[in-house]
Amino acid sequence: NFASKGDVSNQIFASYDVYKGKASLSVRPVLPTFTKSDSGSLRVRRRGVMMLSFLPAVGERKYDYEKKQFFALSATEVGSLISLGPKDSCEFFHDPSMLTSNSGQVRKTLSIKAHADGTGYLISLNVVNNILKTKEYFTVPVTTAEAAVIKTACSFALPHILGWDRLTNQLPRHIEGHPSKVDPKNMDLEWDK
Amino acid sequence: NFASKGDVSNQIFASYDVYKGKASLSVRPVLPTFTKSDSGSLRVRRRGVMMLSFLPAVGERKYDYEKKQFFALSATEVGSLISLGPKDSCEFFHDPSMLTSNSGQVRKTLSIKAHADGTGYLISLNVVNNILKTKEYFTVPVTTAEAAVIKTACSFALPHILGWDRLTNQLPRHIEGHPSKVDPKNMDLEWDK
Amino acid sequence: NFASKGDVSNQIFASYDVYKGKASLSVRPVLPTFTKSDSGSLRVRRRGVMMLSFLPAVGERKYDYEKKQFFALSATEVGSLISLGPKDSCEFFHDPSMLTSNSGQVRKTLSIKAHADGTGYLISLNVVNNILKTKEYFTVPVTTAEAAVIKTACSFALPHILGWDRLTNQLPRHIEGHPSKVDPKNMDLEWDK
Amino acid sequence: NFASKGDVSNQIFASYDVYKGKASLSVRPVLPTFTKSDSGSLRVRRRGVMMLSFLPAVGERKYDYEKKQFFALSATEVGSLISLGPKDSCEFFHDPSMLTSNSGQVRKTLSIKAHADGTGYLISLNVVNNILKTKEYFTVPVTTAEAAVIKTACSFALPHILGWDRLTNQLPRHIEGHPSKVDPKNMDLEWDK
Repeated sequence: NFASKGDVSNQIFASYDVYKGKASLSVRPVLPTFTKSDSGSLRVRRRGVMMLSFLPAVGERKYDYEKKQFFALSATEVGSLISLGPKDSCEFFHDPSMLTSNSGQVRKTLSIKAHADGTGYLISLNVVNNILKTKEYFTVPVTTAEAAVIKTACSFALPHILGWDRLTNQLPRHIEGHPSKVDPKNMDLEWDK
Repeated sequence: NFASKGDVSNQIFASYDVYKGKASLSVRPVLPTFTKSDSGSLRVRRRGVMMLSFLPAVGERKYDYEKKQFFALSATEVGSLISLGPKDSCEFFHDPSMLTSNSGQVRKTLSIKAHADGTGYLISLNVVNNILKTKEYFTVPVTTAEAAVIKTACSFALPHILGWDRLTNQLPRHIEGHPSKVDPKNMDLEWDK
Repeated sequence: NFASKGDVSNQIFASYDVYKGKASLSVRPVLPTFTKSDSGSLRVRRRGVMMLSFLPAVGERKYDYEKKQFFALSATEVGSLISLGPKDSCEFFHDPSMLTSNSGQVRKTLSIKAHADGTGYLISLNVVNNILKTKEYFTVPVTTAEAAVIKTACSFALPHILGWDRLTNQLPRHIEGHPSKVDPKNMDLEWDK
Repeated sequence: NFASKGDVSNQIFASYDVYKGKASLSVRPVLPTFTKSDSGSLRVRRRGVMMLSFLPAVGERKYDYEKKQFFALSATEVGSLISLGPKDSCEFFHDPSMLTSNSGQVRKTLSIKAHADGTGYLISLNVVNNILKTKEYFTVPVTTAEAAVIKTACSFALPHILGWDRLTNQLPRHIEGHPSKVDPKNMDLEWDK
């Protein structure tokens, strides 16, 4: 029983990685978690995200795993990313301590800026941590091909981080041997309040 | 056995939600239901839809769940939505009592109107209920990013609300140890009447 | 065991239907069938198709099921369909008796012609049967929204009619407790002849 | 148990094939393989690829299977392919002996060149093998429709060769009867180092 074993699929590590001169960028989906109510229905407990992680380079093809930084794109931020045209840019601001007593102490800024010639983007992450008194800056140029992978894979992942894949691949939801041909209740789901 | 438990997957609640100043909009797929004939074949009983639901705002970040209104997009209406260009608009009219004695008493109008500058859409729902003598109006501006999520997620959902995901992820449909190399019946499915 | 029961998934009926004044058009995927060799590997036996079926109208909202005609789009023809621009047209010719003694006796022509104003397509099927001495002609105008459903659903179905969904959703293909870190055989699959 | 049987899904043969006058081209996805650690987590062991294979023609509709040559597109190369515009071209260079003592002895070049009129591409593979003293050259013109199949099917396959389909279609990752409403650890995954 998977459910009783907890967070099993979290233990699959499959990311799309871009290793560049100053830093590396890894992208992977993190699925939502669900809560089962007493009635048996499932509700999203923690929303899924596209997790970006950055490592600074510390030599040729060497990256410092101790300095890993994360940026978790929400569904709407993924929408921004996948609708970026070849000349577009976008920027996201996160405070991972939002709604805690440390609110405002850490500021993360992710910026995706199109190259002037439309041949890719510069993705950069800026992390200012006032608690640890640190500032970190990562910058990863991605080509058109790498951006196409990220956009295509994020488009694929989007319904999954929304939890919509849970609605599919199911056994029949409602099977009966003798359907009633005229059933007003079924005529319009809009009455289902 | 899922089938005997009935409408299980209906009890998964995973919607994409947009909360704005005057109202909120939630989007989620509702899968088709199937009927099993005596011969064992499955037919779509009730078509799947993309269910939009609206809540009016009654304060800052507060929404009135008692006044929830639904609008169920058919496959073709989803086709309209996902093919909307950044300057396009569309409008749908529903009568949830169609073909009943209350036909014409309730009129629902969903309008999706591009912002003049192409940076998103205004989605609004108008519900005129002559039985309850009520008129309700919901309006939710969505950004380009939010619209991209809705379009991408609806494109993903479209084959599922058609029931086509039921045709996949199956065990082999036809496996034989020694295929006949030349079998005219297999040469063209167009003869399968 | 599904395999021993044969063509089970064929018995799911879920099509996208467009009912118009002169005829109706239904679209549904038909998955490939597989052959299992003695060694246990699976090969495609009969290719999958997108099956179009047409019914002539014989009154208001009444269609003659006795006069149903089929046209089975191959993967490449589906490629044509999904890459059609709003002003494009295409035409396919089939001989369902090809390679039999009746070759040339039946000619089917499917034509997809963009409306001059880019607001949809006219889909028509012409069937000339010299054996039965019949000529049949079906014509179904589809809107932009209906065409978007057909294109989106066909794009979804394309990998499935190729049989590629069989390559996914599998248990781990190769799991070992202690991977060899350097294994030249694994370095490049291009040596796998 | 699939895992103990090893490379099962590798034994499904379902490719998209284009047979032309001078050579044939087959395209199929090869999924990644995974390694299970002692802790039970799965890591990608060998990356997935889109495998292109070429056969030279040796007569009308006859192809020489002995002279098959492979070219394995990485995820990023697939990104290049699927983002090719109708007038674009790209070229990839592989050395299947890279990092071995035979490095540099075999050079493979795949070229995808748009037809001048935008009606498809010329796909060619050049293999220079200094060990066997052979040079082979394959050239396959593909139409817009065939290119649409390849692009659509590769877009479908991309998340699968990344291994992201393993993250989905799972049972609930985290189900609890009584979720804690406020759990700072869950508030932002960006703290999950």
